[in-house]
Amino acid sequence: MNRIDLLKKKAFEEKGFDGFLIANEANMLYFAGFPGASCLLFPRDGENMLYVYGVNYEQAKAEGKGFHVELVKRDENLMAKVAAKALDFGIKKLAFDTLTVENYRSLAKSLRGKAKLKPMGKLVWELRKVKDSGEIELMRKAGELVCEGMKAAYETVKPGVREYEVAAEIEYAMRRKGSWGTAFDTIVASGARSAFPHGGCTDREIREGDLVVVDIGACYRYYRSDMTRTLVAGKPSEKQKKLYEVVKTAQQKAVQAVKAKAKAKDIDTVARKIIEEAGHGVNFVHGLGHGIGLEVHEPPALSQQSKDKLAAGNVVTIEPGIYIVGFGGIRIEDTVLVREQGSEKFTDGFYTLEAST
Amino acid sequence: MNRIDLLKKKAFEEKGFDGFLIANEANMLYFAGFPGASCLLFPRDGENMLYVYGVNYEQAKAEGKGFHVELVKRDENLMAKVAAKALDFGIKKLAFDTLTVENYRSLAKSLRGKAKLKPMGKLVWELRKVKDSGEIELMRKAGELVCEGMKAAYETVKPGVREYEVAAEIEYAMRRKGSWGTAFDTIVASGARSAFPHGGCTDREIREGDLVVVDIGACYRYYRSDMTRTLVAGKPSEKQKKLYEVVKTAQQKAVQAVKAKAKAKDIDTVARKIIEEAGHGVNFVHGLGHGIGLEVHEPPALSQQSKDKLAAGNVVTIEPGIYIVGFGGIRIEDTVLVREQGSEKFTDGFYTLEAST
Repeated sequence: MNRIDLLKKKAFEEKGFDGFLIANEANMLYFAGFPGASCLLFPRDGENMLYVYGVNYEQAKAEGKGFHVELVKRDENLMAKVAAKALDFGIKKLAFDTLTVENYRSLAKSLRGKAKLKPMGKLVWELRKVKDSGEIELMRKAGELVCEGMKAAYETVKPGVREYEVAAEIEYAMRRKGSWGTAFDTIVASGARSAFPHGGCTDREIREGDLVVVDIGACYRYYRSDMTRTLVAGKPSEKQKKLYEVVKTAQQKAVQAVKAKAKAKDIDTVARKIIEEAGHGVNFVHGLGHGIGLEVHEPPALSQQSKDKLAAGNVVTIEPGIYIVGFGGIRIEDTVLVREQGSEKFTDGFYTLEAST
Repeated sequence: MNRIDLLKKKAFEEKGFDGFLIANEANMLYFAGFPGASCLLFPRDGENMLYVYGVNYEQAKAEGKGFHVELVKRDENLMAKVAAKALDFGIKKLAFDTLTVENYRSLAKSLRGKAKLKPMGKLVWELRKVKDSGEIELMRKAGELVCEGMKAAYETVKPGVREYEVAAEIEYAMRRKGSWGTAFDTIVASGARSAFPHGGCTDREIREGDLVVVDIGACYRYYRSDMTRTLVAGKPSEKQKKLYEVVKTAQQKAVQAVKAKAKAKDIDTVARKIIEEAGHGVNFVHGLGHGIGLEVHEPPALSQQSKDKLAAGNVVTIEPGIYIVGFGGIRIEDTVLVREQGSEKFTDGFYTLEAST
């Protein structure tokens, strides 16, 4: 069964809807295999619609297989056009993934009370969360590509090099091996800024003894990977080494705990306990990880607040960290496929504080 | 007057609101100078609030100057927390920039009818549309950086090279000169796919005689540039040269027409007429350009539907194109600062179909 039919089964047969509007960009890519649609409308009775402006019309016709491709003119109100078609289809109960307040109001107004509207984005996430074999193949490749970037980081980090120069080598290495771009803005955060989990990448010159957090992702045919390593420019101190071992152990044990049917919260607990026992619970300021796929942050969440249960086909990150203001930060992260028994690491290697230079 | 005070003047003094909620990511960056906040609340009477989760709390305290930085716990409802504070502040009429339906509902529920809510994102755009001297400096730099990328493209494109290999050299050149990353996903669309304005960048091997559309952007301290050139791998044909001259003339004439107080629609018309007179009006399938800044697509729009008037300090793209399915596409684009008299090009050079190789 294809993705659209699976969504229809969930939404129409199980939940009683008779139409589904997809307006989120990544969701459109997921169902249409094509970036650049303006929205998709799946009716219970009728042809699946792909709405697109002129700029992407020819591409939609070439790449958006299985849809009626509808051209939207620049002076048309897209939501009014969709509403008219929904009423044509006889839709009475229209689910949608996500809408801005303005679009919601415009759509509701044009439906004139003849169809009910309800946000049901979670049904799409139920599908997207479980990667199929084709997606797994692409994500494995995205994992291989990001490891090439990490190799370049280990070869480049040393005192006197600027953060963006490290990023240049990382991204170049990934691209030359076939990456479609970065999965998110490359982080090379050195010195004091390594204590900020999202420390970015600036023109700061890396100094002897700095911790350098390298958090990077590759992209392959729209699918993403996410990997973090922390290294030291020059010779690591005893304190850096000690904290590094805590994070490394926490990360390894958490990865070992990953398997289908495990509670996401419990995986977080495995890592958190190890860091707490080392006296740094307060310095682990984020959840253990997140799902990843077409977007870099997806369900399921791995955290103390998570109610998610892992399932075979989930792809998640495992990324404990210790962040100490004034000292710096250490994070180790891999992208991992959840299997019935255990897991498969899409990223691997470079579990060391020492650069290769 | 700083940005927040300017917004308050517009929203509170001129429009009668007494609170403004900022939830859009780029808007938060604009007002807080820091990426990673969850939302901002500006009251008429009281301290400006910056809400942030633990993962970015320390960075917010270090970088989010002039705010009361409020830690949001993972199990708290952010919208409920904001609503409670808004009521504390005595806010009765709360403007916001943009919210999802879910967040809007959650916020409205928690306000319990004691404060009115209204989307006023356009007030923020009125500010962001007009770049100040600091922003102009950063965007000029982003323009210089993207020209370095284009130079690499002209040196790399030739038969036998893959699209992503060209992207690798472009991005590497920009990064090494100090780019903070790409402004958007690099487009290197060759052959038949050059006829798609958003043709992406794949592993396709470029062939002799292919048109290659290179649409790229650099990023400098969060500000973006956008530049397109089209070249031919090998020797251009007579038809390619003829169409290229049409697009080039349309682009040059449109750039020459840019100045403060010009109607955006009229600038579009300058380019469109030239392409229409060459018999290709139907192949110019998008508007002439768009504003650019923290985001790659911002107001004002330059198109036949636009009601915008240009103002000094706007930064816009001028990017006419001709797209012929089966033949290919040609687009030439520069990023341009609108001045009282005329304009300043942030991107320039490489107005030729011939690669440098």
